[in-house]
Amino acid sequence: MPTLRIALAQVNPTVGDLTGNSGIVRSTARAAVDAGARLVVFPEMMLTGYPVEDLVFRQSFLAASRAAIERLAADLDAGGLGDTPVAVGYLDADGPPAVNAATDPSAGPRNALAVLHRGRVAARYFKHHLPNYGVFDENRYFVPGDTLVVVRIDGIDVGLTICEDMWQTGGPFVAARRAGVGLVLTVNGSPFELHKDDTRLALVRRRAAEAGATVAYLNMVGGQDELVFDGDSVIVTAAGEVLARSPQMAEHLMIHDLDLPLGLLPPPPSEPPAPRPATGEMGGDEMGIRRVHISDPHPALPGVPVHGGHAARLSDEAEVWQALVLGLRDYVRKNGFDKVAFGLSGGIDSSVVAAIAVDALGPADVIGVSMPSRNSSAHSREDAAEMAKRTGLELRVHEIQPMVDSFLATMSLSGLALENLQARVRGVILMSISNQEGPLVLTTGNKSELSVGYSTLYGDSVGGFNPLKDVPKTLVWKLARWRNDEALRTGEEPPIPENSISKPPSAELRPGQLDTDSLPDYDELDAILLSYVDGDKGRADLVAAGHDPELVDRVVRLVDLAEYKRRQSAPGTKISIKAFGRDRRLPITNRWRETGPPGV
Amino acid sequence: MPTLRIALAQVNPTVGDLTGNSGIVRSTARAAVDAGARLVVFPEMMLTGYPVEDLVFRQSFLAASRAAIERLAADLDAGGLGDTPVAVGYLDADGPPAVNAATDPSAGPRNALAVLHRGRVAARYFKHHLPNYGVFDENRYFVPGDTLVVVRIDGIDVGLTICEDMWQTGGPFVAARRAGVGLVLTVNGSPFELHKDDTRLALVRRRAAEAGATVAYLNMVGGQDELVFDGDSVIVTAAGEVLARSPQMAEHLMIHDLDLPLGLLPPPPSEPPAPRPATGEMGGDEMGIRRVHISDPHPALPGVPVHGGHAARLSDEAEVWQALVLGLRDYVRKNGFDKVAFGLSGGIDSSVVAAIAVDALGPADVIGVSMPSRNSSAHSREDAAEMAKRTGLELRVHEIQPMVDSFLATMSLSGLALENLQARVRGVILMSISNQEGPLVLTTGNKSELSVGYSTLYGDSVGGFNPLKDVPKTLVWKLARWRNDEALRTGEEPPIPENSISKPPSAELRPGQLDTDSLPDYDELDAILLSYVDGDKGRADLVAAGHDPELVDRVVRLVDLAEYKRRQSAPGTKISIKAFGRDRRLPITNRWRETGPPGV
Repeated sequence: MPTLRIALAQVNPTVGDLTGNSGIVRSTARAAVDAGARLVVFPEMMLTGYPVEDLVFRQSFLAASRAAIERLAADLDAGGLGDTPVAVGYLDADGPPAVNAATDPSAGPRNALAVLHRGRVAARYFKHHLPNYGVFDENRYFVPGDTLVVVRIDGIDVGLTICEDMWQTGGPFVAARRAGVGLVLTVNGSPFELHKDDTRLALVRRRAAEAGATVAYLNMVGGQDELVFDGDSVIVTAAGEVLARSPQMAEHLMIHDLDLPLGLLPPPPSEPPAPRPATGEMGGDEMGIRRVHISDPHPALPGVPVHGGHAARLSDEAEVWQALVLGLRDYVRKNGFDKVAFGLSGGIDSSVVAAIAVDALGPADVIGVSMPSRNSSAHSREDAAEMAKRTGLELRVHEIQPMVDSFLATMSLSGLALENLQARVRGVILMSISNQEGPLVLTTGNKSELSVGYSTLYGDSVGGFNPLKDVPKTLVWKLARWRNDEALRTGEEPPIPENSISKPPSAELRPGQLDTDSLPDYDELDAILLSYVDGDKGRADLVAAGHDPELVDRVVRLVDLAEYKRRQSAPGTKISIKAFGRDRRLPITNRWRETGPPGV
Repeated sequence: MPTLRIALAQVNPTVGDLTGNSGIVRSTARAAVDAGARLVVFPEMMLTGYPVEDLVFRQSFLAASRAAIERLAADLDAGGLGDTPVAVGYLDADGPPAVNAATDPSAGPRNALAVLHRGRVAARYFKHHLPNYGVFDENRYFVPGDTLVVVRIDGIDVGLTICEDMWQTGGPFVAARRAGVGLVLTVNGSPFELHKDDTRLALVRRRAAEAGATVAYLNMVGGQDELVFDGDSVIVTAAGEVLARSPQMAEHLMIHDLDLPLGLLPPPPSEPPAPRPATGEMGGDEMGIRRVHISDPHPALPGVPVHGGHAARLSDEAEVWQALVLGLRDYVRKNGFDKVAFGLSGGIDSSVVAAIAVDALGPADVIGVSMPSRNSSAHSREDAAEMAKRTGLELRVHEIQPMVDSFLATMSLSGLALENLQARVRGVILMSISNQEGPLVLTTGNKSELSVGYSTLYGDSVGGFNPLKDVPKTLVWKLARWRNDEALRTGEEPPIPENSISKPPSAELRPGQLDTDSLPDYDELDAILLSYVDGDKGRADLVAAGHDPELVDRVVRLVDLAEYKRRQSAPGTKISIKAFGRDRRLPITNRWRETGPPGV
């Protein structure tokens, strides 16, 4: 069988940066061709970044993407790379882009994959299955394609597919079997979730078997707002063998020699696409097939075969930690910030944020602000100082009592209003530092306390990004211990003071306050939250699973009431099925309660 | 021809309040039957409220809706109303609800309309066309129905449709003509936008002609988060004659005698639905028709014919004002608040918010807080006091300089950081009042300044709701003059001080500051924003339309950079095509600029 040396470019594009993303394609394609690659592949929507959301509706953006793909083809050719086909995801359209694809399906935007060759777009495929659940809204944005595109490269037939095409039954993989391809490319912008890597690999295997062909699965890497694309690209044979696998959470150029059958000779004529139904999508079995000839069989490659390797797999904690580091780093850098600042209380949450920030940006770009009040314990100040000493981050101290007292001189506040005042004064201090000096403010509330509304709106929720937004409290502790163990393993000083991990958590907004005054034990709380929030289970399911009914009622009521606060909080890296960002949409005004009618 | 006395219940349900909404149906149906109605109709998703968003994915909610519709049928019957068919929108499903309708289209949730009769659900129709643009996400939530349901009531054939079914070509209205119905009901949760009423009426006329039948169009009324449903229900004949029209922005029970042809006798057997395609929707012409017999022809109604009337139409300003009043009142009441509080600076924005709040809630539930600094002019204090005197709202005064100074004693702040500090101290004062006493805080920034980021995050943007979020500055002035003229017309004192309307706008955050220091003239700014934000036009379109290129670049750059701040701001009533809420989704991290690559 002939050999195809394929390059899977697991790279990190930025949304909207057509120029920068084109540059990544050019330099990476150059490196791949220098290594002898005969086909170079880039992720879904490589040119525009992903997801571009409502930018799709701006005609000037769509036009810019279409112009940029043509320019990229020309530039690759001018740079001497024109003979190597390069597959690049981008935003395209049939005819002039429609303002609203929902009302004019014939002319709407397309999630497209181009094969660039000899200075032009030699083939283009439009994504067929459009995901419209969780974080995805693609029925809003794109018109589905109805034709599988098969390109013949070095005499080998290669089917093109994009992301969701693999997650739904029917469609392109069925058509690929019918077309008798030797290889299916699937390019992705597939966001990280804990344990999703296992699901994905099983699915790649299943589709490879269905198509009767090797599948080359390429995923993007990097952070984009709340999403982290985790890479983890893989090549799997029709028999399910993993030939090579790229690392998680890191950029990587995988180059691998694939032995693949030659396509039938001569290439059969294109089958016409089936007629388009009046509205909506069509089933996969009716997909047409379009064949494009790129290049004839190629002489055998010289030298020893190149193997793409098997990157080591990360443990669950390592995977989450690296996702949080990558998500924060890219949010900061891609938004044009250099530094971050946040309240460093010496508690577990802000300490873990500090460690993540130092890993993401280096200690010189991390400002921890200790803002003690008269309710702050001595160990809070000490633990914050110890954290700074261990990591080298910049520590500042602002006592908040004078500002708190200045409000109390004109307003009579008590209870929750007084507790919140302290958190809000801290928010004002952090935003003043941000406005005066430029760092991005991080907020540090974990998913458990955000879920039940245990935070102060415009207080500790102040900030542009929250690394722990999707991390339950019990996982915060696990991550802290894992990070410290990792440091010991590599001979470094553990970054997080032991006392920050072991002391009972407290908001320190009134004397002697503990989280357990207001909240259940975090083990119990997180177990209920996992079912109720991530799993969409109802009260009855939770009770049936063995949780105490009164506790369930209490937690569920808190969660239902906390929705508004969560909406107002900063974006944060998503690591679970249901974070509190774009993939969760609930009405604010809503009187339905799991636990019965709301009280007056 | 026989007469059908129809009742269109233009009512105001609350999302999630199954018990309360059932109560509205029972009491309104009672009133309609007492007035002799033979068919009573309620809006789309009446039982659950609309839109319910991700509540759809909670199985317990779906089960609660299905149980509630059965209970409602039984309760109506037990209350002696069982003989009158009552059409009620609700959430249903085929079989057990799927967690994710996208992956299991056969069992997913349905946007449904039930006809209740003699204690049971006698017929149910599933919405066919699902809107998935603007504020709508129904492809995410619902599986489309594929069968038109025709109910025979008093011998008259009535076709059932829901909202978007009318906005798309093909589908139920085509099937209704084929079925030979005498009447099409279309129940709606159709959100208000300026001038949408005219579009809607034209569409009802067109569909009535297509169906060859009278159309009874019923819309919901009331505020739900950012949406306002404006009522404006209407009955139109196949020839396009408007028989009766309900008021805008108010609850109303329209009762009208319709002369309609009897259905064919005997009723033809049901046509089976066409086979469902593998995925997605089907075209309208293939819709099946299901016929349900409810009741035989009825003796002629005694007495004079009842006419539904023609409600007076509102002017553009009146329409917007009433939408803002209704949106605020329902947001406050439906979320369980009694009072509102906001910063009352004496400027035009906070004065208009004050007038809206007083109209919505009455002066006793409105707290205006004057928070002067050393940069506040004397007239600011006076205008705020004058506003309070004219309307009777409660005025409080908190000087902010001592708090500002307490921060400056420990931090060295200048420029924007110093300006923002003042706005943030005001935010802390308002939230302290809210936490101590319970009012909802309103934020008062207009759409023009929010569009260009002319506001302080966690400062003047603090608050749970913003009545002016979708109101451009030039319209704020128009509304102020309109409201004062309206007062003169009805012999009341104009609520807004003339000086608040006529003085040049200023943020008063530094000595002598004017909006025009930072922003273009509002007439020019709003014209550009209308094209760029609402119209999704590009830079080239704006320049071609005659705007100064440098000004276009400046505004477009400000808008592109302000997206993050807008995301963090409170919900507010939507009155235009593109507000800044759920119907606009842009990545935060985005380096694409209309005006070229971003600077470093």
